[in-house]
Amino acid sequence: MTEDYTLKHRPFVILGLISEKMHEGGCHAYDINKRIEDRGMRNWTNIGLDFSFSTIYRTLDRLEKDELVDSFEEEIDNRSRKTYRITDLGYNILRKKVYNVLNNYMGRNDEDFYVAFSMFPILNLEEQAEAVANSIKRIKKHKKELNGMLDESLAEFPKMPINVTGLFIHPIKVLQADIEFLELVLEEIKKGGGNVEPEEYNK
Amino acid sequence: MTEDYTLKHRPFVILGLISEKMHEGGCHAYDINKRIEDRGMRNWTNIGLDFSFSTIYRTLDRLEKDELVDSFEEEIDNRSRKTYRITDLGYNILRKKVYNVLNNYMGRNDEDFYVAFSMFPILNLEEQAEAVANSIKRIKKHKKELNGMLDESLAEFPKMPINVTGLFIHPIKVLQADIEFLELVLEEIKKGGGNVEPEEYNK
Repeated sequence: MTEDYTLKHRPFVILGLISEKMHEGGCHAYDINKRIEDRGMRNWTNIGLDFSFSTIYRTLDRLEKDELVDSFEEEIDNRSRKTYRITDLGYNILRKKVYNVLNNYMGRNDEDFYVAFSMFPILNLEEQAEAVANSIKRIKKHKKELNGMLDESLAEFPKMPINVTGLFIHPIKVLQADIEFLELVLEEIKKGGGNVEPEEYNK
Repeated sequence: MTEDYTLKHRPFVILGLISEKMHEGGCHAYDINKRIEDRGMRNWTNIGLDFSFSTIYRTLDRLEKDELVDSFEEEIDNRSRKTYRITDLGYNILRKKVYNVLNNYMGRNDEDFYVAFSMFPILNLEEQAEAVANSIKRIKKHKKELNGMLDESLAEFPKMPINVTGLFIHPIKVLQADIEFLELVLEEIKKGGGNVEPEEYNK
């Protein structure tokens, strides 16, 4: 595997959860499932409401075959348990993925956006600021294009009804909300607020 | 077929385009394709950038088999051309679909929303106002729930970092944009702005 690996949505979620425990020697499948539960991740990601233990195991197998995680067996209370750890390759692929999703965010529905956003402290402060600033630039450009298309249409058909103009006005408003949100995030990053609790990445 | 028919995204788009020509005796496949082109519908619907003539024909066949449209052949310039017309059943199903999509819109990504929105003049003014008002109510409730969840989390963990609070702040901001948009639409509807040009539905 190389760092060009395409990390799909579910492996992205799982690899992110494994990475959080990289300084604690790894984690078990039940711990991954517990954090998915505790954080309500079936609601704000696209892993699916039916994302179960067997899907977690299948995803872990895939990640291990592709060398993004490795594992070792431990004997706990006479039962054998597998512990998963992110590999260096997996960590680099994960960081790249988080950066790319944030950097390329267009304010449009992207199932990876909230996942990448929740993990953005895996990037250093410069990378965080750069990715968010690039996304803001991209969204502003897109918003400007839509505004231009609306103005042109209205110049040609001044009485255009709301069921047509709304197809521009709605995305323009949503993009504006995205810009305001990302500007707030950028401010927080500049204040150092992009860091998470010390027990996670920032060691 | 009954009015409980489930109209999927592509047939929804095509049936809507056919319905616009109900007072002009119907339309041909090339005319459907032309309006998809002219309106850039491959960009703001989910029919796909690869939505081609053969897909239009397949969709038309399905709609005809299911009795939502009927067709007749005409001889034009020595070539046989099929004209499609929406049936009464098709018209009722389409109106129901437009109403339901608008009425149940949650401010979340819904591939049918822009399609239904663009066609809302197929509803009468009361239906338009009712569906949009219901959607506003629904979105306000959802926004309030998210605000409540954020406040609770912050009460328990006051130093929660932006990569966690953002998972609430972002959807709250987007829902607010949806509310403002729909309130603007509702105002227009009350002023009668929900009507489209006379050559379309309002005859």
